[in-house]
Amino acid sequence: MAGRRPGGPDTRGEIVAAARESFASKGFDRTSIRGVARDAGVDAALVHHYFDGKEDLFIAALELPIDPRVIATELMRGPLDELGARIVTTFLSVWETDAGQARMKAMLRGAVTSEEVAKMVREGITRMIFTPVAAVLGTPDATQRVALVASQLMGLALARYVIELEPLASATPDEVITRIAPTLQGYLTR
Amino acid sequence: MAGRRPGGPDTRGEIVAAARESFASKGFDRTSIRGVARDAGVDAALVHHYFDGKEDLFIAALELPIDPRVIATELMRGPLDELGARIVTTFLSVWETDAGQARMKAMLRGAVTSEEVAKMVREGITRMIFTPVAAVLGTPDATQRVALVASQLMGLALARYVIELEPLASATPDEVITRIAPTLQGYLTR
Repeated sequence: MAGRRPGGPDTRGEIVAAARESFASKGFDRTSIRGVARDAGVDAALVHHYFDGKEDLFIAALELPIDPRVIATELMRGPLDELGARIVTTFLSVWETDAGQARMKAMLRGAVTSEEVAKMVREGITRMIFTPVAAVLGTPDATQRVALVASQLMGLALARYVIELEPLASATPDEVITRIAPTLQGYLTR
Repeated sequence: MAGRRPGGPDTRGEIVAAARESFASKGFDRTSIRGVARDAGVDAALVHHYFDGKEDLFIAALELPIDPRVIATELMRGPLDELGARIVTTFLSVWETDAGQARMKAMLRGAVTSEEVAKMVREGITRMIFTPVAAVLGTPDATQRVALVASQLMGLALARYVIELEPLASATPDEVITRIAPTLQGYLTR
């Protein structure tokens, strides 16, 4: 049994690392706060101190460029026929920052080079975006629609920030929003 | 000076490896058939035996999932208002094969993890697809339109084949074409 330690300077990071390993090897359902705490050698109460439940821990483990629950919240706010614009605006607001862009690239890199990270990303998107969005759209093919939105967003991230494909890489965020929003809207409601 | 050898069993592979290194470090313009031959330790005539010029060698070095010149040719054939469907159909016909999918994944992996591969992919797409397509579209923003098409295709590859995002991953090719073609068409001619 690992020794229990009080919170040190990198305790949060060690919890996230233990969580990432557990989510990657066991998946979301079979990972528990208690198990992660044990793997990190800390008390479960300390995990609860840093993270507001297993989903919050999962998001930290994914190192997502954006909290997927924000997207679900965006959905509820404002008219459905402007949802495409809201989604791309929200993602760009993260990706245009140095920190947000670095995390997005790390996630892309991880997903492309590691089957386990790809599985985590897949599970994360499905669990935290698809289910709420499908409920809002209310069509039988809602998850397919959201998957297409996700594909265009991933491709935008790859082409603009990783491959740096011109002239897309140097287009202004407004120009990108103007071009991409109708696509996302089409996928969602056409 | 490296010794000149006649063609052996892996000579073609050695030429491609030397070319890849040269294109990555010097770029397309500053790479020559003669220089690649020297780096590979073979006669320039042997490079010409395997490859129909520098562009052909560049495509081999990129290990692209599809010959980008095929896309340019596709453009010329058939009506412009069905171009989006033709493009996605062409890419899927490659990505749905084991070999084509493996090469596409290798390219994605390389582009995401290596700045040099990203640069080669960027240069390859720009040189071999953008210029001819821009000529056909004939609008001032033609290259931006084609960059958006490229972003959706990259995102489709990533979401469907690498992340394996459901239900997009298990959709039939026809279903994917039906969903993606209007997006590409919109980017090209809307």
